[in-house]
Order: sequence, then C-alpha cells, then structure tokens
Amino acid sequence: MAAQTPHQGDRSTVPAAAAVSRRRVLAATGIAGVAGLAAAGGAVARDAFAQDAAPAADAVAFRGAHQAGIVTAAQDRLHFAAFDVVTRDRDHLVALLRQWTAAAARMTAGQAAGGSGAVGGPAQAPPEDTGEALDLPPAQLTLTVGFGASLFRDAAGRDRFGIAAHLPPALAPLPHFPGDQLRPELSGGDLCVQACANDPQVAVHAIRNLARIGFGTVSLRWSQLGFGRTSATTRAQSTPRNLMGFKDGTANLRAEDGALLEEQLWVQPGDGPQWLAGGTYLVSRKIKMLVETWDRTSLAEQEAIFGRTKGSGAPLTGRDEFDRPDFAATGADGRPVIAPEAHVRLAHPDQHGGARMLRRGYHFVDGSDGLGRMDAGLFFLAFQRDPRRQFVPVQRALARSDVLNEYIRHVGSAVFACPPGVRDAGDHWGRTLFG
Amino acid sequence: MAAQTPHQGDRSTVPAAAAVSRRRVLAATGIAGVAGLAAAGGAVARDAFAQDAAPAADAVAFRGAHQAGIVTAAQDRLHFAAFDVVTRDRDHLVALLRQWTAAAARMTAGQAAGGSGAVGGPAQAPPEDTGEALDLPPAQLTLTVGFGASLFRDAAGRDRFGIAAHLPPALAPLPHFPGDQLRPELSGGDLCVQACANDPQVAVHAIRNLARIGFGTVSLRWSQLGFGRTSATTRAQSTPRNLMGFKDGTANLRAEDGALLEEQLWVQPGDGPQWLAGGTYLVSRKIKMLVETWDRTSLAEQEAIFGRTKGSGAPLTGRDEFDRPDFAATGADGRPVIAPEAHVRLAHPDQHGGARMLRRGYHFVDGSDGLGRMDAGLFFLAFQRDPRRQFVPVQRALARSDVLNEYIRHVGSAVFACPPGVRDAGDHWGRTLFG
Ligand code: HEM
Ligand code: HEM
Repeated sequence: MAAQTPHQGDRSTVPAAAAVSRRRVLAATGIAGVAGLAAAGGAVARDAFAQDAAPAADAVAFRGAHQAGIVTAAQDRLHFAAFDVVTRDRDHLVALLRQWTAAAARMTAGQAAGGSGAVGGPAQAPPEDTGEALDLPPAQLTLTVGFGASLFRDAAGRDRFGIAAHLPPALAPLPHFPGDQLRPELSGGDLCVQACANDPQVAVHAIRNLARIGFGTVSLRWSQLGFGRTSATTRAQSTPRNLMGFKDGTANLRAEDGALLEEQLWVQPGDGPQWLAGGTYLVSRKIKMLVETWDRTSLAEQEAIFGRTKGSGAPLTGRDEFDRPDFAATGADGRPVIAPEAHVRLAHPDQHGGARMLRRGYHFVDGSDGLGRMDAGLFFLAFQRDPRRQFVPVQRALARSDVLNEYIRHVGSAVFACPPGVRDAGDHWGRTLFG
Repeated sequence: MAAQTPHQGDRSTVPAAAAVSRRRVLAATGIAGVAGLAAAGGAVARDAFAQDAAPAADAVAFRGAHQAGIVTAAQDRLHFAAFDVVTRDRDHLVALLRQWTAAAARMTAGQAAGGSGAVGGPAQAPPEDTGEALDLPPAQLTLTVGFGASLFRDAAGRDRFGIAAHLPPALAPLPHFPGDQLRPELSGGDLCVQACANDPQVAVHAIRNLARIGFGTVSLRWSQLGFGRTSATTRAQSTPRNLMGFKDGTANLRAEDGALLEEQLWVQPGDGPQWLAGGTYLVSRKIKMLVETWDRTSLAEQEAIFGRTKGSGAPLTGRDEFDRPDFAATGADGRPVIAPEAHVRLAHPDQHGGARMLRRGYHFVDGSDGLGRMDAGLFFLAFQRDPRRQFVPVQRALARSDVLNEYIRHVGSAVFACPPGVRDAGDHWGRTLFG
C-alpha cells in the first residue's frame, strides 16, 4: 500500500527538530509560568522565535514562483477559511498580510506562529502561539492565500482599498447554476486561506493562529474542515476514493504536466492584471451528498452515472483506471456504453475546448442533519487559469444534465484570485497587488 | 517523535491483505457493472464476502471479555453516532444488533461491511458496501456499542422492548449542572456506536455502513467527527495536547492499571443487572471552547486555571509531567501554588473518594459560528464503572468552581451502558441484555 497513499498523516516518521523549534516557545515560558505564579510574575526573556537554520524534513517550501498548496502533492487534511476584512484602513490590511506571511513561513517550517507584536515577554502576556501543535512536525503544511472580488469593491461598488482598478475580469461572480442552493454564510469572502497538511491538528492550528493574529483586522466568515483528499496532484500519488466510493482525480491535472500547467493552471502575463501573473484562480463549492439515497442505488446505476467502474475506476469502455474513455463505443443494444449524461463525458475537456482544472477537494462530514441523515459531501476545490473558460462551462453542463444532481446539492460557493508565490524574505502576500 | 505519537493514521505501512479483502467486493462487481451496462444486465455471481483467514496486521481484535475501543490504545480519529430506534418490534431490533455485530466484526478486520440480506447478487442491486474504504486497511478500527436509558423506557415510562426491568440504576439521567447549555439534538440517544480508527475515512465508513444496514430500524440522531485524541490510554502512548494547547490525559486511567480497572472501569458482577457485568458506562459531553477568548488569556492565567504548565504538562509544583501535584505547597506569597479552583485540583481523585475515569475524548472543529469564531472544542468521552460516583461528582465540582468555565460551554450530553465484549462467533451485541 505504500505507493498508494503516501500522504497520510504519519507522526511516527517525524524529525525531532521541527517539534523542538515549536516547543521552544513554551519550554521557556512554562518555567516563566511557574515563576510567574510562585513569585507573582516578572518578565522572563524568551528564546521563542529564533528560526531554525534548516527546515524539517517533512516541510514543504513556502517560497517560490508559485504558491505552495496547488501542485504540491495533495495532503490528506484540510482546514479552509474565508475571512472578511473588517478594517477600512489599507495600511492595517497590508500590515496584516505582512504578519500573516511571516507567520505562514514559520508555521510551514514547523515553528511557532508568532504574534502581531513583539515576541518574547512575560508570562502575563498571551502566548505567541496557541500551543496545540507544539509537539507536532510541519506535516507538509501549506498555506495558500486568495483574494475575493469583494476585497476590491464593496456591494455598493466602492473601491475599498484603492485596488479596484486591479480587479481581474476573470474574478467575476459565478453565474447562478440550475439547482444551486447556495447559502450566503457558506459563500464568498474577501480573503481565503487554504491550509493543507497531513495532520489535521497542524492545519487547524495554522488557521487558528492566522485568525488570532488577524483579530480586529479580519473576521472569520466561514470555514471548512476536510479529510481524505479526493484527488491526486502528482503522478506518484494513487487515486483516492470520494464518499460515493469512486476513485476521484483520475483525469486530474498534475504537477508533472509541464506546458499544460501554463496553459490551464497559471495566469500568464498577458492574461489580465499584471499582479496576478504566476497566480491562479480557485473555485470552491461545498457540495452535499445525499449519502443514504446514493447507498440505495444499484451498482450499475452508480457506474452509469459516472461512466466509470467503481472497483478499478476504469472507464466503462476500458479495463484500467488510466485507459482513455471511448465515448463513441456502443453496446450490444446500440446505445453508447458511456451514457450521454455520464459525469465524465459532460466534464471531459473534449466538450469544453480542451478545458482542464486542477481539482484538489476533500471530504467533509459535519455531523448529521436532524432528519437521520449524514451531513456529508465533497468540498470541491479547483485551481485554473480562468474560471470563465474552465469551471463555468463545465459546471453549466453538469448542472443541466448530470444524473449525479439527484444525489448532490451545491450549498456553498466562492472564487478567489490566488497571487503568485512569495519570492524572498522581503516579499509578502499581496505585495504584487498592493505594491 | 516516534515514541510520542505512535498512533497516527499511516496508510503507508499497511499490509496489503486487508485492502484486498475489502476490494474483492467490487473487483468482481466492477466487471459486473460493465457487463450490466453493455449487455443490459444479468446476474453475476460475486465472491464478495469471503472472509480472510487471518486478520490484517493493523487490526484490533473485535471479540473479547470487554469491548474494544475502551482500553485500546486511543486511535487518532473518531466518528461517534447516536441512534434512535424507530421500530417497535423487539425481533427487528435484535436482528439488527446481530447484523451489526457481523458487520462490525468484518469491518474491524478490514473487510467489506456486508448488507442486511443475502450477499452477492447482480449489479442491479445496491452494493453491499459503500466502497470508500475499499483500498484502506483496518487502521485499528474499533466499534463500541452502548445502550441509552431511553432504549429501556420511553418518555412516558413505557417498557419499549421488554427490557425495562434490566435498566441499570446507574444509567439514570445526569443531573443539570450549573452553566449547562445542552441542546437536545446533540444529546441522548437509544444506542450509540463509537468508531475509532487511525484513518477518518475508515471510521466514517464504518458508521455510515451501520446506518445503511440499520435503515428502517434505527435513525441517526446525532453524530460527531473528532480528530486528535485528547488522552492516552496505555503507558506506551505519549500525552497529546488539547485545543487549549495543554497536554491532556496525563493522569488518565490506562490499560496497564490492572486491579484499578476492575475498581474504576468495569462493571462488576455485584454492581447491578447481570447483563452489564464486564461492561462499563460511557458519558459523552460536547464541550465548546471559546477559542478566541482563550487565545487572548495570559500564559500565567492559563496555567493557573489548569494547575499545570503548558510546555511540559508538569503540575505547577513539579518539574516533570508525571510528578504528583503537591496540593499543599504554597508560594512566596503564602497562597497555594495550585489554586483552590484549579482544574486538576477540583477533578483530582483525592476530592472524590478516589474516583477515576478513563477519558478518551477528541477535538472537534465544526466550522465557524457566523460571528467570526471557530466552532470548536472537546468531545469529551469518559468510561467508568458508575457515573453517579465518578463523572457526576467531578462535574459537579467543576461546574461550580472551575475557572475554565469562562472559556467553555457544555452543549451536548449523553450516557450509555456499554455491554461486555462479544465472546464468540455465536455471540452478538446485546445478547446478555436481550437473551
Ligand atoms: C459531489 C460532486 C462530484 C463528484 C462526486 C465527482 C466525482 C468525479 C469522479 C468520480 C470523476 C472520475 C474520475 C476522475 O477523473 O477524477 C470525476 C471527473 C471529473 N469531474 Fe467530477 N465530481 C463532482 C463534481 C464536479 C464538479 C462540480 C466539477 C466541475 C464543475 C467536476 C469536474 C470534473 C472533471 C473536469 C472531471 C474529469 C473529466 C475527464 O477529463 O475525464 N466534478 N468527477
Ligand atoms: C474542555 C473541557 C476540558 C478540558 C480542556 C480539560 C483539560 C484537562 C487537562 C489539561 C488536564 C490535566 C492533564 C490530565 O491529567 O489529563 C485535565 C485533567 C482532568 N480532567 Fe479535564 N478537561 C476538561 C473537562 C473535563 C470534564 C468535563 C471532566 C469530568 C467531569 C474532566 C475530568 C478531569 C480529570 C478527572 C482529570 C485528572 C485529574 C487528576 O487526577 O489529576 N475534565 N483536564
């Protein structure tokens, strides 16, 4: 099984260095705490945020031309957060983006988050890290930021932070799709941060500390915990199964796709506002599954709906998972083997001028719905060069014809423009946008 | 770190056998599906539920004198479900408990769940397993069943299934505690199943398939996904951290505690109804944490609240995690070092005639609350011999005086009597109760 699911959270193969570096925050302050109580306080210097020279072995590089967390081999856990900006002050917002960048660089290296002000200080101050990840490694944590259209203009069309001129046309609101049951409290947001890691505690810790640092500048709008990737983003990864039991991610864009990634994933210099070159767009859709109804559907019906077999994931016209579907093949009865409204036919690039996406979704289970049903489904995440030419036409085709619609409900939706990567120590999230 | 957190979900060290045995269900039926479509159906025999001779290496034994999932080394993920029984027919209920037992035995061994009727059959039938765990190992899955007081008598006091005479007095409803904000839709239940595993997909799959098999006999009342154990139940396990950043589980009862387990954990033959001897009681409390408020509290205050240091988990009077707290020690100011209302003092066995519990809780993050706050906390689970002498007095003391109450809210509550273990192939969940 090693080759099949190499990205499970495995705390047992962890280098000790990273944990030590997080731990240093409280190894010192723990003693400060005792002293503080027994001797009624007094400032004790802390060696809290000294950066380790070398990052831990299971850390993903934070800096680069593109943001991490996109073509990065999909980790197994997600904590996704959408924030609203509550300040009207551009400088506050930019200062926060700088602080977040520094915290993200530290946390992805397995270090303590740090705070909004000075580090170190007496035990009478709140800790500069919430602590629950102190003993944990980086766990391949990636933090990926995105900007929503509402950051550029408010509902009344006003320029909020002097960046309205840089609003990319491709960040237009998604059209309404037939069947949409979107809930505003699960949709939109001025900013998003996607935290992926192989340990949920590391992903949760990261979002929580960004929210803590952002207190007074941003407010958590909605968030989603996800487990079990529903895609593969590198050839080395096996294809996992979604909660419908099918392999999901077979025909995904992957890190190795070279020129195709420039064509389908990364915003190119000529595409639109210059600040986004090297970036990408993220569409998130919270899609509930009517799990109990699905589980009473016959296997033949399930396989007809996707156009693939449940066991191997092969197209109904093939034997192996990666066989190319033959959409022209017909059965003994003269009808197409892959039905006209099969999910893989409707979503296939042939139908959409070659449009592809990098899907990177997760399962969610939010408990149950009070009517005896699981509240579960797919938190769909897809990165792409231009949603108007990729997500929108594909979802239009699916919303119109996909038999899968009987078993799913889209309840949340958002689009974000994800800037290029942070390049060096002086760089920060949003620098290309805010200058 | 290997010694510290050995129970993370690690799909990379998995024996292939288990996965193969689940997979067989669809390896055959996948082909049936193609045939079914291309040739318009026809029954295809399935080699679906042939049981493997030897269980996979990362499986926990399902049968034994006590149920697994109690002293079993705490796994890292939880899916907990409370069900209401919707049939009035005792035979239906007992038949379901038999089917559940068979399915639980299979799934904990890494095999497909099976269904309620005949196994095997044409692709025109719903699959006998939902499929999303087909490629996954047992991941130390345990399934632990419990019976709520409402299973014995309905709200009007009527004997529902002819078992009212066997209602254990210790299964009495919990008293109201000061500060309780319990929500009925997160509380109670006729039956519960605790699914723990090192892979959330395996735990979710198990509950889902039990719900599927129980369709028409039971209905899901509430459920909870948890990640990150908040306890250690064997000496080999390190102590994890809760979402307040503190080590949690230091003073827990553990598998190695021998005679103490008979005294504190397992219902003894003389205790009450005979059917429960070798069983135990489970108290569940869903406890929200006001995370953002906590994160703005000083380290000294946080440590005073628990009476332990955040870094090492040592009592404020000691140096090492496992040092015995010295409740008599006073500081330079003459005041007790461990405050009178510190959590570990209030909860300590010395205050409660030696009462201990086996805590086995998990973190939860259910998203955010619409007001910019995380909807997160501790899903507290504690096993014990008699809640009236263990959970109730401890929680009474905590509810009255614990400073922690400023940072937490109890929103869900339930008590279940967990029968002894399933002993042999003819045995089943509830046999000692239903005969
Ligand atoms: C709960 C909802 C969904 C489920 C369960 C689902 C499941 C699947 C599965 C099992 C496959 C076949 C394996 C693969 O290539 O990954 C697939 C393919 C695909 N899906 Fe979905 N999907 C869902 C929603 C969507 C949505 C909303 C979109 C985009 C609008 C989408 C776009 C695609 C694309 C582009 C492919 C690849 C088609 C190809 O090139 O063969 N899916 N999906
Ligand atoms: C969010 C709520 C809670 C948190 C964060 C919490 C946290 C902790 C921590 C950090 C410790 C010290 C380390 C250890 O021995 O495990 C502890 C100890 C303990 N807690 Fe809690 N706890 C909570 C609720 C409860 C409740 C509801 C009970 C039972 C009514 C309880 C019973 C105990 C007991 C019995 C101990 C061990 C005391 C000793 O023997 O030293 N806790 N808890």
